[in-house]
Amino acid sequence: MTTPTTSLPLAARADDLVGSVIDSSTSLLARQSHDIVRFAMGSPAAEAIPTRALAEVSATALGVHRPDSFDYAATEGDMPLREALVAALEGTTDATTLDRVTITSGGMQGLDLACKLFVDPGDLVTVESPTYTNGSATALSYQAQLLEVPVDQEGMDVDALVALVDHAGRTPKAIYTVPTFQNPSGTSLSLARRHQLLEVAREWGSLVIDDDPYGMLRFAGEPVPSLHQLADGDPLVFSVRTFSKIVAPGLRVGWVDTDPSLQRLLINAKQAMDTCTNLPAQRMLEGFLREGYLAEHLTRTRAAYHERKVAMQQALTEHFGDLARWTDPEGGFFLWVTFDPAVDTEALFEVALAEGVAYIPGNAFSPSRRFPDALRLCFASTPPPRIAEGVARLRAAVDRLAG
Amino acid sequence: MTTPTTSLPLAARADDLVGSVIDSSTSLLARQSHDIVRFAMGSPAAEAIPTRALAEVSATALGVHRPDSFDYAATEGDMPLREALVAALEGTTDATTLDRVTITSGGMQGLDLACKLFVDPGDLVTVESPTYTNGSATALSYQAQLLEVPVDQEGMDVDALVALVDHAGRTPKAIYTVPTFQNPSGTSLSLARRHQLLEVAREWGSLVIDDDPYGMLRFAGEPVPSLHQLADGDPLVFSVRTFSKIVAPGLRVGWVDTDPSLQRLLINAKQAMDTCTNLPAQRMLEGFLREGYLAEHLTRTRAAYHERKVAMQQALTEHFGDLARWTDPEGGFFLWVTFDPAVDTEALFEVALAEGVAYIPGNAFSPSRRFPDALRLCFASTPPPRIAEGVARLRAAVDRLAG
Repeated sequence: MTTPTTSLPLAARADDLVGSVIDSSTSLLARQSHDIVRFAMGSPAAEAIPTRALAEVSATALGVHRPDSFDYAATEGDMPLREALVAALEGTTDATTLDRVTITSGGMQGLDLACKLFVDPGDLVTVESPTYTNGSATALSYQAQLLEVPVDQEGMDVDALVALVDHAGRTPKAIYTVPTFQNPSGTSLSLARRHQLLEVAREWGSLVIDDDPYGMLRFAGEPVPSLHQLADGDPLVFSVRTFSKIVAPGLRVGWVDTDPSLQRLLINAKQAMDTCTNLPAQRMLEGFLREGYLAEHLTRTRAAYHERKVAMQQALTEHFGDLARWTDPEGGFFLWVTFDPAVDTEALFEVALAEGVAYIPGNAFSPSRRFPDALRLCFASTPPPRIAEGVARLRAAVDRLAG
Repeated sequence: MTTPTTSLPLAARADDLVGSVIDSSTSLLARQSHDIVRFAMGSPAAEAIPTRALAEVSATALGVHRPDSFDYAATEGDMPLREALVAALEGTTDATTLDRVTITSGGMQGLDLACKLFVDPGDLVTVESPTYTNGSATALSYQAQLLEVPVDQEGMDVDALVALVDHAGRTPKAIYTVPTFQNPSGTSLSLARRHQLLEVAREWGSLVIDDDPYGMLRFAGEPVPSLHQLADGDPLVFSVRTFSKIVAPGLRVGWVDTDPSLQRLLINAKQAMDTCTNLPAQRMLEGFLREGYLAEHLTRTRAAYHERKVAMQQALTEHFGDLARWTDPEGGFFLWVTFDPAVDTEALFEVALAEGVAYIPGNAFSPSRRFPDALRLCFASTPPPRIAEGVARLRAAVDRLAG
């Protein structure tokens, strides 16, 4: 006898959860067994994860004399971590106070919380174009209507934002931005545009979701004040931060920096998401911050990422000087390459894998697939000699696709 | 000059995220500095958390020879943990296959995922009455309309469910149940009712959210097949499981066991929640399972919890024989006490805290606050002599409130 099988109707939002370009890229990538230069994922370099320091602090944090490290944590975050974090941020562009900080399960949960608290189905949410895929996916999972705003060398084009909003005939509920060393373009929102963005957001009563995971990874140019700083306590900026890119992504610890009046709602919303963020990782990070590892770690990784960016640009000049242009990031992980004459970077993907190099096709970064001729390269996770090799393989793939 | 302050409209669902009875109870509790017997929270006993074994496996899992333990994990979970889990579940009422298992950030995220995939705003979702607060809160955070179904000594009253659905004039999108050693009542859904529940769910095309965190903690009576088993592959059962109650809640690792066809959607939905579950804890649990610690750990904790339940019932008989009745759980963490004649358990709460004992008032477990005369006691986290002391204090509080 077979059990009868029930057919269940999914929620309407499930339509927005279907597979993307990134899905197929990463699952293809996972099936590869041969030597691949991996420019695809936005992970810190393996050697840039402070494994030794984390193992050292974990021995203390998780030792038998601290048994409560395996119990539930406070939903707003373990107080010693929150205190160590506020102390570590003093003097940075993310300086803050205890009553504004809520610990999250990575930056991603910060975006989930922002949308949970502010986005109703049908609300207009603007995203950058190109944008961070999981950022736009989160807004879609709350059934937002997305409006894509072009990005150039100075970050989001705020004049274009104003024109698009005028044309839409209604103001956005939220403006989603990765203002510094943007994912995927690598460009940063200029100071003038930061002021302009806050001004229009204030005029519209729009929430600014300030997703800035890379801001501490500046290796060139002059620091720019964060949107958090510029807002100077105005509740319109909802800042999302994470330890993923500056320490280790696998810990899944980040924080949001918001108006203190939101914390009770953040706690209640997070209760219904995952109760609390895992406590062992919070304790490890507390130890990492208290022992003062962060500053030296950032100094070391910034220098490494700078060297890698330069290596990638040199290799691109050598192999693609006539075929493409690319951005010049002053920090972070990513370069954005646009082919001219056009190359179909989705078609290129499998050829590139066969040649032994992986990247993410441009269309993955746009809900309306506006970037068929572009691709994102992560320079951060690969040492310079392998970068040169990977870019050479990419050129071979382009030639093979063309021929 | 003061910065202008923007007033931002919250999402409609934020109305359902306002403070609950539990909020005020736990924040009151957090402010207490004196000696309190804590029957309130649903945490495993501190001494029931296998801290030594976890510290031991963490040294291997997080050691410098395994540096990728701090990197992103696969969104569906780290394959070695999924494999170790499937092996550990063999022969239990949760036996399953690899293609049905997705790792989550605690059982709570399993509930969040079920609602994300299936609950549209306005959908009818049935919950038990009393119910697990964060379970109903999650459904509310997706703007479900809740229908509360009474619970008795055999768990959810399925006849009442049918009558209530008839009266509502529409079928539920999802039926949320904690079928075994229910939170908060401690009672279990009988086998006959499990069959009946699946039958009506099939007839209605309703998803059954089978939230069973305590099923492995049976210390008396005969095992009952899980809803997962009884469904025998029918996709209508969405099973939510967790390591929180059987190993350690602070790790924030659980799993959902679903029809394999849902996994791609689960991955995409989880990507937009927290990217992946923290990898260090997944590696620790993998070690814990592979080293075979789980079976002996469960044997030890079941015996301890049984002893504690008996101690609590004896103390209740001694102090409340004439004033209240209570449930007789065969496993899990909780007893449910109903006062007769009536006692206002919300008013009692502060008096009890002053006397040195904490619990959760009954109204916290019902969105429509149906249990003003009841309270939940967690027997699992307190050793027997302290249990006797705590129940004596509770009696003193009741007398003081009355006088």
